[in-house]
Amino acid sequence: MFGITPSARLRPSPFFEATLAEGVTAFTTYNHMLMPTSYGDPQAEYWRIINGASLWDVAVERQVQLSGPDAGRLAQILCPRDLSKTVVGQGRYVPLVNHHGVLINDPILLKMAEDKYWLSIADSNIWFWAQAIAAERGLNVQVSEPDVSPLAVQGPLAENVVAAVFGDWVRELKYFAFRQTSINGIPVVVARSGWSKQGGFEVYLMDGSKATALWNLMKEAGKPWDIGPGNPNFCERVESGLLSYGGDTDAQTNPYEVRLGKYVDLHVADDVVGIAALRRIHADGPRRHQLGVVWDSTEQASFGFFWYDIFQKGQKVGDLTNCAWSYRLKKNIGFALISRDCKPGDSVEVLKDGKTLTGTLQELPFI
Amino acid sequence: MFGITPSARLRPSPFFEATLAEGVTAFTTYNHMLMPTSYGDPQAEYWRIINGASLWDVAVERQVQLSGPDAGRLAQILCPRDLSKTVVGQGRYVPLVNHHGVLINDPILLKMAEDKYWLSIADSNIWFWAQAIAAERGLNVQVSEPDVSPLAVQGPLAENVVAAVFGDWVRELKYFAFRQTSINGIPVVVARSGWSKQGGFEVYLMDGSKATALWNLMKEAGKPWDIGPGNPNFCERVESGLLSYGGDTDAQTNPYEVRLGKYVDLHVADDVVGIAALRRIHADGPRRHQLGVVWDSTEQASFGFFWYDIFQKGQKVGDLTNCAWSYRLKKNIGFALISRDCKPGDSVEVLKDGKTLTGTLQELPFI
Repeated sequence: MFGITPSARLRPSPFFEATLAEGVTAFTTYNHMLMPTSYGDPQAEYWRIINGASLWDVAVERQVQLSGPDAGRLAQILCPRDLSKTVVGQGRYVPLVNHHGVLINDPILLKMAEDKYWLSIADSNIWFWAQAIAAERGLNVQVSEPDVSPLAVQGPLAENVVAAVFGDWVRELKYFAFRQTSINGIPVVVARSGWSKQGGFEVYLMDGSKATALWNLMKEAGKPWDIGPGNPNFCERVESGLLSYGGDTDAQTNPYEVRLGKYVDLHVADDVVGIAALRRIHADGPRRHQLGVVWDSTEQASFGFFWYDIFQKGQKVGDLTNCAWSYRLKKNIGFALISRDCKPGDSVEVLKDGKTLTGTLQELPFI
Repeated sequence: MFGITPSARLRPSPFFEATLAEGVTAFTTYNHMLMPTSYGDPQAEYWRIINGASLWDVAVERQVQLSGPDAGRLAQILCPRDLSKTVVGQGRYVPLVNHHGVLINDPILLKMAEDKYWLSIADSNIWFWAQAIAAERGLNVQVSEPDVSPLAVQGPLAENVVAAVFGDWVRELKYFAFRQTSINGIPVVVARSGWSKQGGFEVYLMDGSKATALWNLMKEAGKPWDIGPGNPNFCERVESGLLSYGGDTDAQTNPYEVRLGKYVDLHVADDVVGIAALRRIHADGPRRHQLGVVWDSTEQASFGFFWYDIFQKGQKVGDLTNCAWSYRLKKNIGFALISRDCKPGDSVEVLKDGKTLTGTLQELPFI
């Protein structure tokens, strides 16, 4: 593995010291910040998410805060999903698109107050985007990055840990619902959410100076359930069919191509950015769709930084956007962003290091 | 040093294979791509830039291409610098600001044709920004990312190398001037530019599939001048006073605070983004400015990912945004983004790892 050179362009998370103490060994960068990606034992980190409770520094999920009289109006203008029935305390998964209907992020929108929204973003700059739209339309709204850093607890035992810290009320929270509270003087938002399909919560720390205190509090409370450090897990997310914006998408991808059509409401007002383009794309039908591929070879494959061309009968038909060794399926699996002519059950090929890998398309998720 | 985990969110450069062959050991990320930061011998890499010719993979300097009938109009709307006298073949260093006058990038603008411009950007997403402004204003312009990847040759002997490849005409190029040409069927733009003060060129490769061929061509031609691999060098850029957008700037920084006021023309039209705010800031005077600090201690200090608070008589007066060991000055030097009340000659302090470091402010650059 290559080293990552320290630079002030790449901010550490407020949980940096806590993750150092846990023995973090590797990072990725995301929204110009460092996110831990390994503590040195990938298999243990994986099974902890599948069977137990795992503590994740996901401070890189930054908040784009919209506040002021026109915050709600800007939120709806940015989101091609009907937000009119969204209430305070409710979250929504929303695809953001540009004026051409191209996906530019897939945040969780949290309605904090009637005049305050957070977009908890994936890895692209939505501050500039939202500021540009707000200013060009003359809206009375501030776009800012508050001191808010999520800490995730994921896995089937995560609810026990979060309930032990905050109380049994968390067990009643619906998916994406959240509540503001505090613990030992640490202000947080507790939400049922997180980038795995194993269940869990995200605790949005609202004071970065208390990051180590919050980490240690969760760690201590989690001991009965053998909690340990982890991170958004590549293998688990591929098995579960979770989209990585920027990893599984390119500069032409629209929501319909990557299984996000159900989060688009074509009846929203005409001033919503990109809605005219999305109506057109929906009417025409997208040219690509996203399927899974199970590879025949059970030799663990590493695809690293690259997309690979997918071939069918010698013709390029799409791209392999990720590939993981599934600990549960004991197979290599990945996502295909591929022509709509290709269907589940079809055979496909990838050329890698001079060898041809053969595999079969299927619907996502794998598990 | 920590490892960087492979992810398709972080694209390798077209020069990736060539840099692997050269023995790259570490990377940073920049515009969602990997940039080599070391080949294992930092001192040799530094002195090669100061005394010789150094070959850099700077493909991460991506191009935001504006093309179409309104390309020139959009370029001027985005840039608070008068572009009316800029001719085809000429480059311009331009601060980009948002509607509040906050710096959001500091690209080189290249006028490729009357209806085509490139913004060769620093590390922030200007595609989204430019698309938003263009679409909201109804301009007839396409914003895209072309297949263009700069390769830099820097150092006092760089001109010999570039002239050996392309011909002696390159010796006549003025700073930031460029010409389109090709060599061995490889289409390029040759510009006199680069992120060092040691002189040199950037060769913008216009076909990523020919990256290894171009690298090897430059390497072969550079042998008489002992060319070797390098990268934008942290020590050299600090000595030379070169700004790193995102490293030395925060979400409030305006051009006047970081020595870019001379690239702002306050007389540009009122429809230029941020010009009203810049006129206000200029009239009021910025609250901070950027100075150098020379530290008293000659023990090599590593500041890594963080900014540090700068104190004067116990009060925080600014931030230390970088700190490098200067091989030439044999001292620790860094940039201060600091209150205008602080002047060259003033003593300042930083608290690091429980110890107080003392230093003296001075004008930039150091050398």
